[in-house]
Amino acid sequence: MPKPQIPIWGLSGELAMTGIDHTHNPELRSWVASANGHADFPIQNLPFGVFTPPNEPPRGGVAIGDEIFDLVQAVRAGLFDEETEAVAVCAAAPSLNAFLQLGAGPRRALRARLSALLSEENATLGGRSGLLHRAADCVLGLPAQIGDYTDFYVGIHHARQVGKLFRPDNPLLPNYKYVPIAYHGRASSIVSSGTPVRRPFGQSKPADKEPKFAPTARLDYELELGVWIGTGNGPGDPIGIDRASEHIAGFCLLNDWSARDIQAWEYQPLGPFLAKNFATTISNWIVTPEALAPFRIPQPERPAGDPAPLPYLFNAEDQRCGGMAIELEVLLTTTKMREDGLPPHKLGLSNTRNMYWTVAQMVAHHTSNGCNLRAGDLMGSGTISGPANDQRGSLLEATEGGRDPIRLPTGEERTFLLDGDEILLRARAVKSGFASIGFGECRGVIVDAPTMPGNDVQWRNVR
Amino acid sequence: MPKPQIPIWGLSGELAMTGIDHTHNPELRSWVASANGHADFPIQNLPFGVFTPPNEPPRGGVAIGDEIFDLVQAVRAGLFDEETEAVAVCAAAPSLNAFLQLGAGPRRALRARLSALLSEENATLGGRSGLLHRAADCVLGLPAQIGDYTDFYVGIHHARQVGKLFRPDNPLLPNYKYVPIAYHGRASSIVSSGTPVRRPFGQSKPADKEPKFAPTARLDYELELGVWIGTGNGPGDPIGIDRASEHIAGFCLLNDWSARDIQAWEYQPLGPFLAKNFATTISNWIVTPEALAPFRIPQPERPAGDPAPLPYLFNAEDQRCGGMAIELEVLLTTTKMREDGLPPHKLGLSNTRNMYWTVAQMVAHHTSNGCNLRAGDLMGSGTISGPANDQRGSLLEATEGGRDPIRLPTGEERTFLLDGDEILLRARAVKSGFASIGFGECRGVIVDAPTMPGNDVQWRNVR
Repeated sequence: MPKPQIPIWGLSGELAMTGIDHTHNPELRSWVASANGHADFPIQNLPFGVFTPPNEPPRGGVAIGDEIFDLVQAVRAGLFDEETEAVAVCAAAPSLNAFLQLGAGPRRALRARLSALLSEENATLGGRSGLLHRAADCVLGLPAQIGDYTDFYVGIHHARQVGKLFRPDNPLLPNYKYVPIAYHGRASSIVSSGTPVRRPFGQSKPADKEPKFAPTARLDYELELGVWIGTGNGPGDPIGIDRASEHIAGFCLLNDWSARDIQAWEYQPLGPFLAKNFATTISNWIVTPEALAPFRIPQPERPAGDPAPLPYLFNAEDQRCGGMAIELEVLLTTTKMREDGLPPHKLGLSNTRNMYWTVAQMVAHHTSNGCNLRAGDLMGSGTISGPANDQRGSLLEATEGGRDPIRLPTGEERTFLLDGDEILLRARAVKSGFASIGFGECRGVIVDAPTMPGNDVQWRNVR
Repeated sequence: MPKPQIPIWGLSGELAMTGIDHTHNPELRSWVASANGHADFPIQNLPFGVFTPPNEPPRGGVAIGDEIFDLVQAVRAGLFDEETEAVAVCAAAPSLNAFLQLGAGPRRALRARLSALLSEENATLGGRSGLLHRAADCVLGLPAQIGDYTDFYVGIHHARQVGKLFRPDNPLLPNYKYVPIAYHGRASSIVSSGTPVRRPFGQSKPADKEPKFAPTARLDYELELGVWIGTGNGPGDPIGIDRASEHIAGFCLLNDWSARDIQAWEYQPLGPFLAKNFATTISNWIVTPEALAPFRIPQPERPAGDPAPLPYLFNAEDQRCGGMAIELEVLLTTTKMREDGLPPHKLGLSNTRNMYWTVAQMVAHHTSNGCNLRAGDLMGSGTISGPANDQRGSLLEATEGGRDPIRLPTGEERTFLLDGDEILLRARAVKSGFASIGFGECRGVIVDAPTMPGNDVQWRNVR
């Protein structure tokens, strides 16, 4: 099979039509049997993460099929060469910040080595004990210490649909097509997939009534792409659009849980705060730009009449292959569905094609004022909805602001989330002639707001 | 002299009328001669910080007069007792997060021990070498690793004066007197006093023109109180107002540099982002609640007709002594003033009395949804202006949105800051019968935006 010639993104510091490298050869097979044809983690993916095996300390590893390749054990076994051993040591740490800081070159070298180690040509490694752990037996953690978390707003259909709820005639604000809008989120409350999320209390103001403090009645999810920052930049030292892609270490799924009643009352004039900072759930694996290279697409075309990006946000290669085509899916399981043994119900199917700005533009904009990024910083895309009814990335949109409930197979209805509801995000990049690449799960179940005896609406003195 | 009986805040976990403890005895004198009568750092202050002595590694210390007491050397010399030695070891570290996490009890015990060690009763310590360093010879650093930074908006005169520029008839938004408004800021760009600040580039939109990308033309300061978080809380586990003061480890000065032209164009609908995240300057010393105990005041009275705080923000002791009376001052030195040998020019004198919400209310609100705080998190108060013309905490207010320039002694005028301008914030708590307590300096000079040869407005490809 000839090597496919399609755009690869960020190789050797340039956005160039260089072709996919051998780690994406669809004929590659792994000696880890479950990897071959695996929906998320074939040998062409090789995402990095941090996991805790049973009765052992946490460490870095790589997802491969239903297993995790243990980088601590692999280093101990002397499986790396001169170029990659020091990189592998960083990627074996229980927090990947140092590995992320190394940047694109070392990451690609390590990926190439891992691809070789896990391919059938090294099938004899299958006999070594300790290199693999069954993923189902391990606990996955956050892959890095997140210094700062920034959430963007680049899903234009979401911006338009939410804007329409407030301003039917003028849904998009005048700055939207010039500025990649973003705000700072909370780093401390970012949690690993599977962590239960407690329904938050908060202030809201029902129409024509006094403000009240109570558990949110409009709890929502937001379907987002997460972006991990690799090498950082110094204060006062912007990252130009031409180099921005080199500073991106990988991607994850991100659920920006949102309390819409709290948000509506608090957000003027400084933006969302308590409505969103109680929890943000991310998927555990860092899916690399290399794994997603075949799925790069041109930046989605701007409709006629839209302004061109200002020069600091414009790069010809980024226009040509700075976009991505990744399917994004959000699913709901209610308590009743769980009891009835029903599978998760699909609430929406979207795609990163719906991003108005590329991730390189997000990085260039974020640092354009000299703001310094650090390795392990996380950016969210903002909710990525599609234009159609079955492509909505939040309940706020899917239920038209809570007016039009969703019907579930159990006969239940939802406008917003109830306790016991579990939201699952999934992603998959698919392209003819290539192995498909998945992200793993981003999952969270809603649990009760804190209460205290004799007081079912206020938690005062709980601590 | 009888021990004065006035409210002390947060002692033993309660807001109670317990009296000031002996560390505030105004008759206490130190064997460090410069401390006695010192404007900022008398023996009654004893703020914690991190410093680097000449040719030695960074470490924790305590400001005393013109000197810094070296906690590493003090621990080595065996100056602590069983109760305080482990605490002193944490406070001697080059980052004080572990010390902050210990909370109020250990901090008070260490303070009591330091007060005794530095008082004249232990004058023989003056003969020991290595315990003191001249502050002027040392480099001060950030006292802790800041996990998350939150900026509030509790200066009601600022909120009203800025609101008036946009909405003359309705300056305060309806939520202001119910919700302690806040937003998340950027932790990575918080810098130590003295660090130069590069003028940011950014997008702005002149009226009736296309958006442009250029160095900000409306660079401003904001005069704020910083609040250091001590012991954190778990996710989903709010800190009730009754316990909130125990989670506050101390205070600093904070300059929230702001680019008003960038802010005006970007801030809808998610709040300020690049207009503020390029740099935030803080003073280096953590001034403790114990040092500020004599300066507690009742929460400033709400005008008749203002709503009472909702129950989760109401505590009788907090109402009685949750406020603070600290003078806040902002001064400007231009390049010409520096060349002419002129002293800094006072731009405004304000007071923490102008805060509409107490710091305990800020903590209780921040965690009311279960958001977890971590030791070393930083909260800003928001700009603290007074109601009068000479009490403004930002140029936006002092110049009426840039329409009414400030006149300087050199004959120069300013609407917003020019390159070479240095802003200095100072604070002092003063009360009859007590030693006054200062904060040290919060200083920053504006330097050129980044440029590149042949292109004086855009930094593209700079890196």
